[in-house]
Amino acid sequence: MNTLVQLKKYSAELVDLHHLLALLQWDQEVRMPRRAAEGRAGQFATLSALVHRREVSPELGVLLAEAEARKEALSVEDRALLRVMRRSYNQNTKLPEEFVAEFSRLTSQAQMAWLEAREQSDFAIFQPLLERLVAMVRQQAEYLGYAAHPYDALLDLYEEGLTTARVEGMFGELQAPLVAMVKKFAGRLTPLVFTEPFSLSGQEHFAEHLLVAMGFDFSRGCLARSPHPFTTTLGHHDRRITNRYAPKSLDFIFGALHEGGHALYEQGIDEGLAHSQLDDGVSLGIHESQSRFWENVVGRGLPFWQRFFPELQQAFPAQFAHLGLDDFVRGINAVIPGLIRVDADELTYNLHVLIRFEIEKELIEGSLEVASLPRVWRDKYRQYLGVEVESDADGVLQDIHWAHGSFGYFPTYTIGNLAAAQIWEAYKRHDPGFSRTLAEGDLAKVREWLVREIHSHGSVYLPEELLMRVTGAPLSARPFLAYLEEKFSALAG
Amino acid sequence: MNTLVQLKKYSAELVDLHHLLALLQWDQEVRMPRRAAEGRAGQFATLSALVHRREVSPELGVLLAEAEARKEALSVEDRALLRVMRRSYNQNTKLPEEFVAEFSRLTSQAQMAWLEAREQSDFAIFQPLLERLVAMVRQQAEYLGYAAHPYDALLDLYEEGLTTARVEGMFGELQAPLVAMVKKFAGRLTPLVFTEPFSLSGQEHFAEHLLVAMGFDFSRGCLARSPHPFTTTLGHHDRRITNRYAPKSLDFIFGALHEGGHALYEQGIDEGLAHSQLDDGVSLGIHESQSRFWENVVGRGLPFWQRFFPELQQAFPAQFAHLGLDDFVRGINAVIPGLIRVDADELTYNLHVLIRFEIEKELIEGSLEVASLPRVWRDKYRQYLGVEVESDADGVLQDIHWAHGSFGYFPTYTIGNLAAAQIWEAYKRHDPGFSRTLAEGDLAKVREWLVREIHSHGSVYLPEELLMRVTGAPLSARPFLAYLEEKFSALAG
Repeated sequence: MNTLVQLKKYSAELVDLHHLLALLQWDQEVRMPRRAAEGRAGQFATLSALVHRREVSPELGVLLAEAEARKEALSVEDRALLRVMRRSYNQNTKLPEEFVAEFSRLTSQAQMAWLEAREQSDFAIFQPLLERLVAMVRQQAEYLGYAAHPYDALLDLYEEGLTTARVEGMFGELQAPLVAMVKKFAGRLTPLVFTEPFSLSGQEHFAEHLLVAMGFDFSRGCLARSPHPFTTTLGHHDRRITNRYAPKSLDFIFGALHEGGHALYEQGIDEGLAHSQLDDGVSLGIHESQSRFWENVVGRGLPFWQRFFPELQQAFPAQFAHLGLDDFVRGINAVIPGLIRVDADELTYNLHVLIRFEIEKELIEGSLEVASLPRVWRDKYRQYLGVEVESDADGVLQDIHWAHGSFGYFPTYTIGNLAAAQIWEAYKRHDPGFSRTLAEGDLAKVREWLVREIHSHGSVYLPEELLMRVTGAPLSARPFLAYLEEKFSALAG
Repeated sequence: MNTLVQLKKYSAELVDLHHLLALLQWDQEVRMPRRAAEGRAGQFATLSALVHRREVSPELGVLLAEAEARKEALSVEDRALLRVMRRSYNQNTKLPEEFVAEFSRLTSQAQMAWLEAREQSDFAIFQPLLERLVAMVRQQAEYLGYAAHPYDALLDLYEEGLTTARVEGMFGELQAPLVAMVKKFAGRLTPLVFTEPFSLSGQEHFAEHLLVAMGFDFSRGCLARSPHPFTTTLGHHDRRITNRYAPKSLDFIFGALHEGGHALYEQGIDEGLAHSQLDDGVSLGIHESQSRFWENVVGRGLPFWQRFFPELQQAFPAQFAHLGLDDFVRGINAVIPGLIRVDADELTYNLHVLIRFEIEKELIEGSLEVASLPRVWRDKYRQYLGVEVESDADGVLQDIHWAHGSFGYFPTYTIGNLAAAQIWEAYKRHDPGFSRTLAEGDLAKVREWLVREIHSHGSVYLPEELLMRVTGAPLSARPFLAYLEEKFSALAG
């Protein structure tokens, strides 16, 4: 058996085991009985340790080095596989085993403390854990290594090649125009308020209907309920999503479109990449571009609702029979500077991310103390969004990311927003009749283009490389700002 | 770390991994999308191979031998753990790795062939696979070893210590009285026939209601739908069941009681045995005694329905409003010699098992050719049950067990029936007011006794030992025959 074949076999087994970890997680969120939680944590630890041992094994290191020595002769896909496996091998072997175990223990404790702190809206409960986490994450950055800034090492974990300087440049382009647009459009679109509840099964049926219309393949995936919507992959032909249903919210629509966008990306990966580490979205930013493409660019646009609003009215007459299409679309785009990131509209969303980026960067470089976070948080929300943070629960404690030990994750949301708009520009060049395409509900046409241009490639191309191939340009804030200006001018006009 | 502690750690990891295998299976039955089947088989193979390597590792052999050398000083539970681990280590190491892999491939193919053969009702499609399976299973018996008869080695896989002679003795006691009772009672109780369908959600709610009444703990388990009902364990606090719902059948009731009985056994195991190989029912026969105790002894009895029939009438007035309690109980006990084992009543059921036992024994000892099976099957059904087998699908192809490679499994169903009646006798001595207990719906009283006497012990005592402790006697056909005679005389009286 030659080296590459051996390596692929090794890779395929790791992929199987990672899908098992994903199954444990999926089941925990959608089905596991309450009292099984502790036992499940033990199963997770057992399997994780077993996977980790295989991921850092010297045998894998030797196979990789041997294959790399002859990589010039390989196909694009095989070279990409080596790139992805090398990256993950280096990340895994750079962190000492005791560090990984300690970090895992700490994040478990931190999540419990965070939950309690948020419930009691008391940052002091979370603070000592967060201090230890920041110290460990700074240590992690040193282990991983970086060229210019320690935060670079963390950004790169979620978005290969991303740097602090690059993120600063991105927000430099975004900040002033966004603040100006928020001022211009805030309060000019009337939000929707519902007095009649949506039936739970009605919500679920409508979500399923939208997913089918988007092209989500239910023979290769399924939809379940969970407290927090997510998308996960348990196999090449097994891409699953969850959604949540509240009585008086439209989250069931935008949750389905968002997770559906993630899932279409995964379902669209070429079968030739199945059972390898390339059978995955290439980065969080590109993944987020796909979810936001469907949720926002398509799903909050007038043409899409020209097709689907009559069906929504029919499904929920008590809520929509007397509402006009234009008022509906204005309502789902209302601009309201607020405290909560996940409730933010398209204009204010990236300001929430900017605040988190600035804080993370300073925490990691050591220029900001954890103890000052609540004050800094309040100051920045006042400055960027003009809102007063009244409680830690609705302030610095609103996101779980830090309790997970994830620093450097937030900027990928903004990358997703920018990339979605840039990809949309490329799509419009490909299909100048795009408005009609959407108004007729021909979502297959959109999806097929996305599959061909983006999804099918899995992790073969680096994020920037992929974007260059699809749009002819590196990531830029310009298409996003143009998209917002055009859209909100029309809505508020 | 001393040997026993090391061994327990090793055991706990194996338990975790087996629960992962169970999760793969559970998910496959209740949730997995259709096209994921092939990928799932690969995940199963990857994890199975990994588990197998740990189960046959010399390290485990050394730990076991060291612990056994000092077992006199150990507690009852620790000695039982050594017994269970030794048994499984011996079973695993006696089979060569290539044999296990080949057997696994063959059973996969055999299941596909069996499905097709049954669909087309053509034994010839299954025959060549079954011939290879019988050859391999005979080889398996040689690898495992036996004292008197090669079939002993297979029986012992499912019921520790069971022998061919013991099963022959059991059926020797049963056969004549059963045949006589079938003659006496067949056709004397009018079966229920439904013209109105039961609503699916109504069936599910009623099944849940019965499970709650039995004491199934939904914080430590759940109920889902699957084509074939089953019970599985994914952790000490995670015991799950499935049920199926057809429009015009009462299977939803008896499926829930049957699987609920299995699950109560598992949920009742003492927490001190959690995360060890003792945290499991001790044998298939004892497990089946618990499911049949609830399904038949309790669930097809008049007292139980004195309590629950009014609720059933209320839940399904179209079907039951005009039916009397006595006619209902007679209907669910109608004696009808038939072709299908899983549809059989309590009187004829064990004759179906007897036929399979006789065939398996002869196949394994080499006195019967696979090619003769359809003819032998027809002859035996005519002889023991007086019915004509018209098609292979309703004959020799009705059970999946052989396609799974399971020979020696069927007799455990009869052991379950006998043990259930014997345990019921013991319960009646403990609670002479048993009829009132059931008629008042005080199922907790019954369950608590079962937990104390049987469930809590997990696999600590051998099946025969456990039965002796609970009932004061070894397994016998007498209580079962007495139970049937009394019950059916009363119903037909």
